[in-house]
Amino acid sequence: MRIVYQGEPGAYSEAAALRFKPSADLLPRESFETVFAAVADGVATHGILPIENTIGGTIHRNYDLLLQNELPIVGEVKLPIVHNLLALAGTSRDHLRRVYSHPQGLAQCERFLRTLDNVQIVATYDTAGSAKMIRDGQLGDTGAIASARAAEVFGLSILDAGVQDFAVNTTRFLLIGRDPTPAGRANKTTIVFTVPNDAGALFKALSVFALRDIDMTKLESRPIPERPFEYLFYADLSAAREELSCERALTHLAEFAPSLRTLGSYRRWEETDEAS
Amino acid sequence: MRIVYQGEPGAYSEAAALRFKPSADLLPRESFETVFAAVADGVATHGILPIENTIGGTIHRNYDLLLQNELPIVGEVKLPIVHNLLALAGTSRDHLRRVYSHPQGLAQCERFLRTLDNVQIVATYDTAGSAKMIRDGQLGDTGAIASARAAEVFGLSILDAGVQDFAVNTTRFLLIGRDPTPAGRANKTTIVFTVPNDAGALFKALSVFALRDIDMTKLESRPIPERPFEYLFYADLSAAREELSCERALTHLAEFAPSLRTLGSYRRWEETDEAS
Repeated sequence: MRIVYQGEPGAYSEAAALRFKPSADLLPRESFETVFAAVADGVATHGILPIENTIGGTIHRNYDLLLQNELPIVGEVKLPIVHNLLALAGTSRDHLRRVYSHPQGLAQCERFLRTLDNVQIVATYDTAGSAKMIRDGQLGDTGAIASARAAEVFGLSILDAGVQDFAVNTTRFLLIGRDPTPAGRANKTTIVFTVPNDAGALFKALSVFALRDIDMTKLESRPIPERPFEYLFYADLSAAREELSCERALTHLAEFAPSLRTLGSYRRWEETDEAS
Repeated sequence: MRIVYQGEPGAYSEAAALRFKPSADLLPRESFETVFAAVADGVATHGILPIENTIGGTIHRNYDLLLQNELPIVGEVKLPIVHNLLALAGTSRDHLRRVYSHPQGLAQCERFLRTLDNVQIVATYDTAGSAKMIRDGQLGDTGAIASARAAEVFGLSILDAGVQDFAVNTTRFLLIGRDPTPAGRANKTTIVFTVPNDAGALFKALSVFALRDIDMTKLESRPIPERPFEYLFYADLSAAREELSCERALTHLAEFAPSLRTLGSYRRWEETDEAS
């Protein structure tokens, strides 16, 4: 298994990939787009994508990319996130004029960041990449919000540990592959659909699952650029695609949904799944 | 009417405020938080907030702030967005090494930005603020994605006009006030609610509206940081809060929803509303 992830070594996506498969080979890429490309081109067997965080919310961009690409979701993994304030050795909190991190990292530490005076908050492409920028540029007035492993990788000191705004901070990642076979027995399915532009259409769509006792664990809406103020809906169902009730529900939904696609059927992450 | 907006003069929020009320006094602020504060403190009578864009999607941060603050939504306005690539006079496209804009501005021009070679894309706090940074620093290698009015305000040239990825690009803004009285006769209501952690709970919540023929024009979910993988739902209903069917539906929802709050009842924006 060769898993491609977005970010630099020390990124949370790298840790998530290792949590999913400790023996995997890992491959860093700069953007989510190039993660999809590496899997499509066969450079990697799988890709890992953050999809939602319990503080910052959904990473909508990755839903858009799942739709644009034809790579199925084959697994998920949840990773507890512990953010730290990193800086060059010798830099104290008083020296800081700037803090770099990925927008999600910044969002998850918002209250902490507000306690820093006269500090500019700068959004970057990656948490670990922010640590790399400080190391590469020897920026003595800049801090990064990133993992303890990023501090190790780029030789930075930890000024403050555990600076996320809530003790429980978990990110859920999706694993994509070229082969739709899930890792383990599937019990969860992610779909994307549209509804007709009629009153009550979304209610009708949800009824196909509710009336068959299929739980919907997440529902997310995204705009359709060509159709202003109409939406795509992404839903997570707590059933495998091949379960009869789920098959029937999806057939039922297809009767009236202008579009419906299964993005993947895979195994729900349980804390007991972690390899030891 | 004194309307506070986020950004610099030339920001799209400023244009939206003037579209809503051409005679309004306008007050710029750096962040959404300080927009809420200016209304709460009485420095302004109203605040204007972008809430969704037809390409980039929802501005989730503003839903979070509507929940944290006690200021009701009293109106909405839609504004067509035309983005331009701005730079100092004399800068050509070949000189550009960086492009600044607000993350939403960048997201709405993604395809265009990909056509620029060797250019770093930098997220900033504001579209017009990006133009200001170029003027203030006399940055000859930097462009900004912003409005034509921002070019005027900060004395920049337009290198490329209309660079958004889709011809139709509209942002919907909400107007907040201290006084819950809407501008005009209300026919739309925004609520936020939670559902019990049971299978089918969201379906049950939507049924209170569907069974009373109340259309839900938007449904958005946001995480509850203290309760990992549970969600708040924000819904727009096409009915005034005081309509009997809407009152009954909300009473019905409150029977089983652990929390329910009306964020405002106000008049839906129609294109014919624009003051001439």
